[in-house]
Amino acid sequence: MPLDIVSTAKAHGGTQGVYRHHSRATDTLMTFAVFVPPQASEGRVPVLWYLSGLTCSHQNAMDKAEYRRLAAELGLMIVLPDTSPRGADVPDEKDNWQFGSGAGFYVDATREPYAENYRMYTYVTDELPGYLATHFPADMKRQGLFGHSMGGHGALTIALRNPETYRSASAFAPIVQPTTADWSKPALDKYLGVGAKSQRLYDATALIEDGHRFPEFYVDQGTADSFLDTGLRPQLLAKACERAGIKLTLNMREGYDHSYNFISTFMDDHLRYHADRLKG
Amino acid sequence: MPLDIVSTAKAHGGTQGVYRHHSRATDTLMTFAVFVPPQASEGRVPVLWYLSGLTCSHQNAMDKAEYRRLAAELGLMIVLPDTSPRGADVPDEKDNWQFGSGAGFYVDATREPYAENYRMYTYVTDELPGYLATHFPADMKRQGLFGHSMGGHGALTIALRNPETYRSASAFAPIVQPTTADWSKPALDKYLGVGAKSQRLYDATALIEDGHRFPEFYVDQGTADSFLDTGLRPQLLAKACERAGIKLTLNMREGYDHSYNFISTFMDDHLRYHADRLKG
Repeated sequence: MPLDIVSTAKAHGGTQGVYRHHSRATDTLMTFAVFVPPQASEGRVPVLWYLSGLTCSHQNAMDKAEYRRLAAELGLMIVLPDTSPRGADVPDEKDNWQFGSGAGFYVDATREPYAENYRMYTYVTDELPGYLATHFPADMKRQGLFGHSMGGHGALTIALRNPETYRSASAFAPIVQPTTADWSKPALDKYLGVGAKSQRLYDATALIEDGHRFPEFYVDQGTADSFLDTGLRPQLLAKACERAGIKLTLNMREGYDHSYNFISTFMDDHLRYHADRLKG
Repeated sequence: MPLDIVSTAKAHGGTQGVYRHHSRATDTLMTFAVFVPPQASEGRVPVLWYLSGLTCSHQNAMDKAEYRRLAAELGLMIVLPDTSPRGADVPDEKDNWQFGSGAGFYVDATREPYAENYRMYTYVTDELPGYLATHFPADMKRQGLFGHSMGGHGALTIALRNPETYRSASAFAPIVQPTTADWSKPALDKYLGVGAKSQRLYDATALIEDGHRFPEFYVDQGTADSFLDTGLRPQLLAKACERAGIKLTLNMREGYDHSYNFISTFMDDHLRYHADRLKG
């Protein structure tokens, strides 16, 4: 599994790198970013996956999420995958920011013409971990997940389906019920089929209803987030967690919006949350 | 002096805003960013100017310099001006990243056709401070300057020419002798004239030779910076400061390049340096 180095730079005593490879899962070139903390010179370090939101690539959080300072202090490797396959040969809806490029929703599509390339669930949970284990000083026994918006959805659902693989999961403004939210339902319908049962595998509240469990979740949500009422609806996650007896810390953050200003403000809290659970 | 709000967002308890206005100095619309820390709700706060490097607008440092967390803690207002006038009516060399748009070099041009618009020295030292004093909770008696590369040059030269206005000055990888450096001499020649004496007003080492003084400077420089030997040459500043008896702290940072990975790594040190001198 060869890997091309796109760029590396020293940052906060560690290394911020960008890498590219051909993905079997998506049958495209895929780009991702990894921050390796300075502690990696002394042995494998815990891995924290950051899953980005709609329209983003690895680049947005790498530039704006402000994770390096504290990740370097805590000794966490931060991995930022892309959010979809990309390329001239990949079916897409160019003018639709909620579908196709930048909008993979961390699903394995089953409907044509998307099933061949839009396999971000397999890419993030199976293929990319192989690259990390092979090419980076990553301790794959200590993995956590977090993400923003569509990526918060990804973190919650991947954690619920793989509780043995990931020790910790948190989210910034997650889409907690994508099968009914206005900006995600059309995409799931196209990737998986209208009314398809498989949609429940990609919906945190449905997974919990269906018996999936994860020890606890940590969620921040801005009260000035313009997507709060129709797209995000954290109260639906709170209700599902309460019924299932899953511990949920849900912080409503007064006056914060949906942007990286919000994410970067609460980044330190999330990194410490994961470090407490990954460094044991 | 009306001011348009382009955007505002809550960040780290303060407000990150972007603003636009018509500039008398440059005769163009100018955009700038201001971070107002939470302490401003209780009174005017010190102002720290961040001057950006070649090709940048206010946006690059706003996205990538990672100043908000600690500025909010220390109670510093951070101001990020653009680096040049811009627009269809502004003379430019589109394919030259070292001249024109994004490359104002913080000078007042005297040569045609640049003299009408390229007046970034007056814009940064005279016009924009007026907007800050009028529209923001800025304590104009407590101002500091820092910047990167071309903006480090701007910080050093503006401080040397206005020691009564600014209490503190620091720089990341500054161009210390732009009148001879390969990437700045052609621009100064075009803005000010080949061999013009006025070029010495925009060169930190020349200003020091000519008797200008500032109490002390704090400079970080990466050793893996590809511009170190031909464009930046901090040893020329060290020599000038030593001869003039100006205290200079020059940190050579092993393995760091010229990017925002370098800037963000040492941002906290600079903010604390300025806070120590501005909060008295």
